Amino acid sequence: MNRQWLYANPPRGKLTPDTFEWHEAAIPRPREGEALVRTRMLSLDPANRAWMMGKTYRDALEPGQVMSGFAVGEVVESHATGLKAGDVVEGDWGWQDYAALPAARLSKRTVDAPFELLIGPLSVTGLTAYFGLLEVGRPTPGDTVLVSAAAGAVGSMAGQIAKLAGCRVVGTAGGQDKCEWLIHELGFDAAIDYKAGSLRRAIAAACPNGVDVYFDNTGGPVLDAALFLMNLRGRIVCCGNVSQYDVEKPAPGPMAVPGLVVTKRLRLEGFVVMDFYEQRAEAERRLKHWVDDGKIKAIVDVVDGLEEAPRALIGLFEGRNRGKMAVRVG
Amino acid sequence: MNRQWLYANPPRGKLTPDTFEWHEAAIPRPREGEALVRTRMLSLDPANRAWMMGKTYRDALEPGQVMSGFAVGEVVESHATGLKAGDVVEGDWGWQDYAALPAARLSKRTVDAPFELLIGPLSVTGLTAYFGLLEVGRPTPGDTVLVSAAAGAVGSMAGQIAKLAGCRVVGTAGGQDKCEWLIHELGFDAAIDYKAGSLRRAIAAACPNGVDVYFDNTGGPVLDAALFLMNLRGRIVCCGNVSQYDVEKPAPGPMAVPGLVVTKRLRLEGFVVMDFYEQRAEAERRLKHWVDDGKIKAIVDVVDGLEEAPRALIGLFEGRNRGKMAVRVG
Repeated sequence: MNRQWLYANPPRGKLTPDTFEWHEAAIPRPREGEALVRTRMLSLDPANRAWMMGKTYRDALEPGQVMSGFAVGEVVESHATGLKAGDVVEGDWGWQDYAALPAARLSKRTVDAPFELLIGPLSVTGLTAYFGLLEVGRPTPGDTVLVSAAAGAVGSMAGQIAKLAGCRVVGTAGGQDKCEWLIHELGFDAAIDYKAGSLRRAIAAACPNGVDVYFDNTGGPVLDAALFLMNLRGRIVCCGNVSQYDVEKPAPGPMAVPGLVVTKRLRLEGFVVMDFYEQRAEAERRLKHWVDDGKIKAIVDVVDGLEEAPRALIGLFEGRNRGKMAVRVG
Repeated sequence: MNRQWLYANPPRGKLTPDTFEWHEAAIPRPREGEALVRTRMLSLDPANRAWMMGKTYRDALEPGQVMSGFAVGEVVESHATGLKAGDVVEGDWGWQDYAALPAARLSKRTVDAPFELLIGPLSVTGLTAYFGLLEVGRPTPGDTVLVSAAAGAVGSMAGQIAKLAGCRVVGTAGGQDKCEWLIHELGFDAAIDYKAGSLRRAIAAACPNGVDVYFDNTGGPVLDAALFLMNLRGRIVCCGNVSQYDVEKPAPGPMAVPGLVVTKRLRLEGFVVMDFYEQRAEAERRLKHWVDDGKIKAIVDVVDGLEEAPRALIGLFEGRNRGKMAVRVG
């Protein structure tokens, strides 16, 4: 049997349990050129919600389809060249136990690491932080790097990589607990509770030399405030807009665009991790070394059981996770 | 006698004649290291209004001071090394007949051209268009380039340079007359009257292959619309925000920032022309060739008499000018 979550009812405003519908189907049979994979771990990402809003870097989700999502699993049976039973693969085959997919939609993993790391820190999440910070943000030692949603999957990695790059690192997160954790557990130089108000003043106090690189996972009020605190020729890495995904009506855009962008000669640049996959092998090698050597703490918040996926994704937008949120399936 | 316009009353909302106050002073005497210059031509720029709003790339204007503005003139008397009577110089000495300035605040011009060209097309205006388009926007032949305020000083030059670079060029301007002029006089491929409504649909129709480079002089509704029509990895040259300078309360920022910036991997980048002055000599040489050869039409809208400067600047924000707006003084 193949247990599945369907994307059933487009949310008006916040996600609810009704957004998804449980379904049981037969295990699919792989055709020529396809492999049957068994899901081991599902990645829960803010992007899952963004895909419900319309076309992004991929087509919009359509009600009735299996809920999309990045996953890691094992090949059970293969009729595809280059893949054999037992291979560990990743891909977007969504919230289900099994999927039959053409080889082109599966990416074989050769990194020797547990699924907890393969679902995030040593894959999409870690690479997003790595390429976004280093290739788009291009910090130099001594720079002040501000990271929003710093206790989240990408933010927690981006902040730690910025520390390795010799920067002063300041994060924003929801709640004082997470802020303490960023400083004492992940080594951030300062952290700001974005829910505590007077964000601009708090960032200014935590960044006495201004902000050189702002790694933006949230858009919204942190982006608004950051624009005023950017240094001349500062760079804003546009990685995500999570403050505006799980809402009925998006907030207005940042007032300081384009005014301060001109006068401060800022660069705002968007990216999607796949853009850098030519450099993936090298980046993975480095990330693995850093994690193995304890230079980066790979934080993964694992929820057990496919049946928990909707609750876990809802929890992600309530800020319940620390680090990467994942669901153990198989 | 030194006739002057003072910046007298900070505007609430739009500029009015009361913003400025006529004043007559003695002609200053240059001290050691200074030169006395006589103004020949004043440049009127959207930036003049932006300087009233607060600190930008320069300090805010303070009520009571001579109104600031870029000017071209001649040295009358020099106590500065490197400058002698008769030299043609440019600088920001504002709305007055004479000024005594240290040599560091004067830039000697050696380009052999009339003052009409030295005040704009072969100086700040032309260089802004040149560096903004080529260095920030980096178009390649075949790209679609959208230019806002295309009938203005910078826009009219940027559009023509984009044509020389082999691009399809579309401009926005206020009114059908200006649009016809852009096409028939300046060689734009299409032009859009931003006042005619349904801007996004009109840009989409004029740019069937999407927009690769948007040269943004305006911010506001054209930026809002352009973001939705940008191609993957499109570049937005943040040059100005003229739609938001002469207003009481700026409009909200563009809704699509940062959402579409991420998914389309856009780059928004601000610049100020001085950032590129190391390459100024080469750029001026090229601009002069293009103008001399008739490949670029240098459009200058000259108003006669210092006393007309306030009315002319107010007219600029009413969209009365075509090309560079300048005031002949001496």
